[in-house]
Amino acid sequence: MHADLKSLHFSMEGLKEMYPVIIALDPPPGKGWEWAFDIASKLKGKVKAFKVGWPLLLEGNRVEELKEYGPVIADLKLADIGATMIKVVKRVEADAFIAHAFVGYEGALKELREELEGKKLYLVASMSHPGSVHFIDKHWREFLLLAYLVADGLVAPATRTSVLREIRKYWSKEIISPGIGAQGARPCEALRAGADYEIVGRSVTLSEDPAKTLEEMYSCLKG
Amino acid sequence: MHADLKSLHFSMEGLKEMYPVIIALDPPPGKGWEWAFDIASKLKGKVKAFKVGWPLLLEGNRVEELKEYGPVIADLKLADIGATMIKVVKRVEADAFIAHAFVGYEGALKELREELEGKKLYLVASMSHPGSVHFIDKHWREFLLLAYLVADGLVAPATRTSVLREIRKYWSKEIISPGIGAQGARPCEALRAGADYEIVGRSVTLSEDPAKTLEEMYSCLKG
Repeated sequence: MHADLKSLHFSMEGLKEMYPVIIALDPPPGKGWEWAFDIASKLKGKVKAFKVGWPLLLEGNRVEELKEYGPVIADLKLADIGATMIKVVKRVEADAFIAHAFVGYEGALKELREELEGKKLYLVASMSHPGSVHFIDKHWREFLLLAYLVADGLVAPATRTSVLREIRKYWSKEIISPGIGAQGARPCEALRAGADYEIVGRSVTLSEDPAKTLEEMYSCLKG
Repeated sequence: MHADLKSLHFSMEGLKEMYPVIIALDPPPGKGWEWAFDIASKLKGKVKAFKVGWPLLLEGNRVEELKEYGPVIADLKLADIGATMIKVVKRVEADAFIAHAFVGYEGALKELREELEGKKLYLVASMSHPGSVHFIDKHWREFLLLAYLVADGLVAPATRTSVLREIRKYWSKEIISPGIGAQGARPCEALRAGADYEIVGRSVTLSEDPAKTLEEMYSCLKG
């Protein structure tokens, strides 16, 4: 169900080196949309998508403009009642949204799924930080059952590939994986464990030359 | 540990009818901050606090201005890794924040608590929608243990007072309770079950005369 890395890279070369990477555009203090547009312009066509979250949205609701550079995933970690999540997604022009599975179905993800007709919904199956084991990781099997009902993809961490590998056994659709670089996982580590795309933030976005850094990080695809 | 309703109302009369209520300013389609300021101006001094969430923040980051009308609780349902939650709360000038307990301690709530030094942190112990029972409600006892470490208050639903009553047995600090009105619970129902403040949204904010509606709804305090 998951292409091996060499064939993935081969097909990517045909697509002008599009890496199996999603870039997280979380701005450092004092930075906002101009910072995000600058990085996105340098990576246009080279990555699968751009991921934005609340830190950037608090600097203004300009997702529509970012879509000029590639698909946009709104990583809002939605975890509220359905009526509130709907009020949020109606106001954000993203191609895909990330919500928490733990918020449950009735009165929450059921209503969100209906509202997102035609857009992609990812659910968080497990997270990249240590505290994910306290509650979230205890439920990933039940989250998968819920995901079969409502989700197009899952989020599972590069920092705990044992969980990622387990999830991949039961989930044939898309898996995207955060935790590469600043959070400790190495490039290609999640891809090798079954992820379709790795989510990279600070390692690329805070580097002098984002495109060059990306290319260097993903030399692992050729290994 | 919790004052009875008559004495609560008596002390409120001394304070010019301040109701034990927090007003949720979630804007209907097409409305934004001017709508919120208008309602807040009509309820200034009559309610404990105003609660804002992502739907309003997507219309602009103007929490600072709202503080002219009363304390502001940012109900962001924070549920991300620590580094991201910190980027969010640094950008929102609220007096208090609501986060999910579900996200766990290390790498998440621990870091958030340190960042919020001097501000209030509420954790969600249970939610008002039916789907809360799938995962969240299974863990409220463990959430309380976590709350003892990091929280000033808890959020527990008016729609399931059995859970609220149980939580009150083990938690002496503040409990705020959503679900009154549009979501089905009646005014004073959560107060009677042990909440300190009820969170009211649409019933008041969509009414012709918010102050009069509030007064009518909370005639239950005199009963």
